[in-house]
Amino acid sequence: MTPSRETFEARLRQIGAERYHDLHPFHDLLHGGGCSPDQVRAWVINRYYYQHSIPMKDAAFMSRVEEPALRRAWRSRIEDHDGTDGNEGGIRRWLRLAEAVGLDPAYVASRKGVLPATRFAVDAYVRFVREKTLLEAVAASLTELFAPKIHANRIEGLLKNYEFADDSSLSYFRNRLKEAPKDVAIGQYRVLDHADTAEKQDAAAAALEFKTDVLWSQLDALWGAYVAPARIPPGAWRPGEGLALRRAS
Amino acid sequence: MTPSRETFEARLRQIGAERYHDLHPFHDLLHGGGCSPDQVRAWVINRYYYQHSIPMKDAAFMSRVEEPALRRAWRSRIEDHDGTDGNEGGIRRWLRLAEAVGLDPAYVASRKGVLPATRFAVDAYVRFVREKTLLEAVAASLTELFAPKIHANRIEGLLKNYEFADDSSLSYFRNRLKEAPKDVAIGQYRVLDHADTAEKQDAAAAALEFKTDVLWSQLDALWGAYVAPARIPPGAWRPGEGLALRRAS
Repeated sequence: MTPSRETFEARLRQIGAERYHDLHPFHDLLHGGGCSPDQVRAWVINRYYYQHSIPMKDAAFMSRVEEPALRRAWRSRIEDHDGTDGNEGGIRRWLRLAEAVGLDPAYVASRKGVLPATRFAVDAYVRFVREKTLLEAVAASLTELFAPKIHANRIEGLLKNYEFADDSSLSYFRNRLKEAPKDVAIGQYRVLDHADTAEKQDAAAAALEFKTDVLWSQLDALWGAYVAPARIPPGAWRPGEGLALRRAS
Repeated sequence: MTPSRETFEARLRQIGAERYHDLHPFHDLLHGGGCSPDQVRAWVINRYYYQHSIPMKDAAFMSRVEEPALRRAWRSRIEDHDGTDGNEGGIRRWLRLAEAVGLDPAYVASRKGVLPATRFAVDAYVRFVREKTLLEAVAASLTELFAPKIHANRIEGLLKNYEFADDSSLSYFRNRLKEAPKDVAIGQYRVLDHADTAEKQDAAAAALEFKTDVLWSQLDALWGAYVAPARIPPGAWRPGEGLALRRAS
């Protein structure tokens, strides 16, 4: 017997409660003001790789969707990240954050110095969406269900604890507060509606777990490389690299 | 101008000298006898995922090779891992190591509890070989150049420091001492011979660097999860799980 829609939704929410990366100690450190400037920079550099990859992930998804209506609904995700005539887009907003923490945005955009483990995890997500069923691909996006809370905490924590934080540098997160609920509404409806057998519910739940692994392992990598006892892997960003040049006045 | 064959070979060897995972502190810990039984188990469980994936990687490579002679030469890699009538093969040998350290080989073979970061890294390697040029795929395999030294150190260190170590449990490594030089001879010849422009040499060097990242990040993940201060990610193996049942006597 297929568990009810409500039971299934509760199962998905439970995955978030147990595995979403808001539970990772790096976020306590970051939001609580415990990160050094270089630790914030390492986070900004590595998280940029995720931002950079998300529209490619969404394009991979759309390349497999045969219904114009679903493609149309999904398209706004790419617009949110890449920008439109009237919206600079999330990737540029992230680069403004990079600038605010003293990094050269061109360095960050080059994706040099990104931890290999970040690349492996994020690339795994793009390929997951390219290769798995559409139901699994949408289910993996449902970590957005849990994102508004972490973004709200982050805005509050960063504003309170760091000099660099202001409306401009944090505009990425403010915009995500508006965008994520729209995205998740489409995805949530789709998953709850289409996972109409126990087997499909299992596959969707596994996809959401996979995505929580993608997010969690990025923070584990950051922690191992840049939080005490820090050990930066060969080739990854080292403090002092990629800084914005101060203008001579 | 294309750098000479000798210059190019020296460049590849330099990558090993700077980035191969024999430099990772986990190996000092392991070979020096500093690992707890559970840390050894965590290593055996996670490294199994790599063993499990390597013949799939080699099959992906062979699926793209059009020369029968090269496929024939490469085929022995799959035989070495999967076994033949007269050779149990590396995967079974690894499972004997698993048994020797107190794990249930069926648990290890199930690949439950493998760290997500291990999966992401190893899967990235399989996909690299599936998607990149044949030259890059072969170049990535050249970490075998550096393997005999680490296997010899490992045999010596494990025999000296751990109860479980004997000829049977370490047969995987003894066999690799014989197999790796044969594999690397084919790969090395191929890469040195085919990288006949500066651009191809760069691509081959980048492929070898990528592979060192794959190996290094597996040890980083292991270290973060199971070496102090250990933090096991959600869903990964916890000490006490997957142990072999003691037989009632």
